[in-house]
Amino acid sequence: MRVLGVDPGLTRCGIGVVDIAPNRTATMVAVDVVGSPAGMELPQRLLVISEAIESWLERYQPQVLAVERVFSQTNVSTVMGVAQVSGIVIAAAARRGISVALHTPSEVKAAVTGSGRADKAAVTKMVTKILRLEQEPKPADAADALALAITHAWRSGPNSSAAAGGQLTPARKLWLEAEAKAKKNSERSSKQQWR
Amino acid sequence: MRVLGVDPGLTRCGIGVVDIAPNRTATMVAVDVVGSPAGMELPQRLLVISEAIESWLERYQPQVLAVERVFSQTNVSTVMGVAQVSGIVIAAAARRGISVALHTPSEVKAAVTGSGRADKAAVTKMVTKILRLEQEPKPADAADALALAITHAWRSGPNSSAAAGGQLTPARKLWLEAEAKAKKNSERSSKQQWR
Repeated sequence: MRVLGVDPGLTRCGIGVVDIAPNRTATMVAVDVVGSPAGMELPQRLLVISEAIESWLERYQPQVLAVERVFSQTNVSTVMGVAQVSGIVIAAAARRGISVALHTPSEVKAAVTGSGRADKAAVTKMVTKILRLEQEPKPADAADALALAITHAWRSGPNSSAAAGGQLTPARKLWLEAEAKAKKNSERSSKQQWR
Repeated sequence: MRVLGVDPGLTRCGIGVVDIAPNRTATMVAVDVVGSPAGMELPQRLLVISEAIESWLERYQPQVLAVERVFSQTNVSTVMGVAQVSGIVIAAAARRGISVALHTPSEVKAAVTGSGRADKAAVTKMVTKILRLEQEPKPADAADALALAITHAWRSGPNSSAAAGGQLTPARKLWLEAEAKAKKNSERSSKQQWR
């Protein structure tokens, strides 16, 4: 499954593409942050982001677009721009028949780190581990876009929270699995270094 | 000058096209309210409105799109949908190289009725007079879209508030002119009835 995650914003809009294998391994395909300077006129700013989204949808042909669900409570000063960008992004996907999934920030944090209250640094760290990246994706908007894509794939797959059993909360289980996998990979890469 | 006015909203999005002659006479070309039921999924709701806007821009080829400037303070429960729709509408115009003008509700009320605190009924009444309509445009979203288009044309023309002189405030002057014109028209149509 290929998911395009978008962390909407006018100044910085994170876009990330992640492929998820049937065994749940997540692989980053591409990531970028597009945006526009605050001094630019609003229509031009929205156009820049609209064109970027269209080109990413065209280029990467995702099956799903995962975007942050925006709340009016959070960050009043920037929320209008965030909502305008999210509207553009959602409509662009709908126009192409790509299904759209909305996830709250807490859902993303819980899916990726095991805690709905994790901070940005923890999300970035886990995204880096889960995707086996050599460097942390920066800025945070890039990591958030990737986290959204991972969240969607993990939550909606056959092994998703709804399907998972056991005593561990699904998010916690994912976290432990991801951490174990990350550790294994890091050991493997250490071994490779010494081979 | 042809202006397409949009009163953004998810459930009801007012769209109106107005032609303004060099002598400031405003004539309605078309008006409608598009929208989507609250039970529909958000991507589908945004798509319905996105497609309507694209088709109106294509069909009426306006020089300017006038849209309400959205504030995060107003109407918290619906503001996110309003912002998402406004983002889609603004980007659609920008993509076609149509210039976009944002007007606050107070600017619209002041331009059309002479008072920035006028209620919806007063706006509808003045829009009906200014455009010489036989019936009031309904619902209020339709009248608001037409009011936005009129506001933009009146504020930005050679006789706009910036250029106007005299002791009357420009909005008040417009209001009196429009009222006088409406009276003349209504007299004329009374005469025609008896001819």
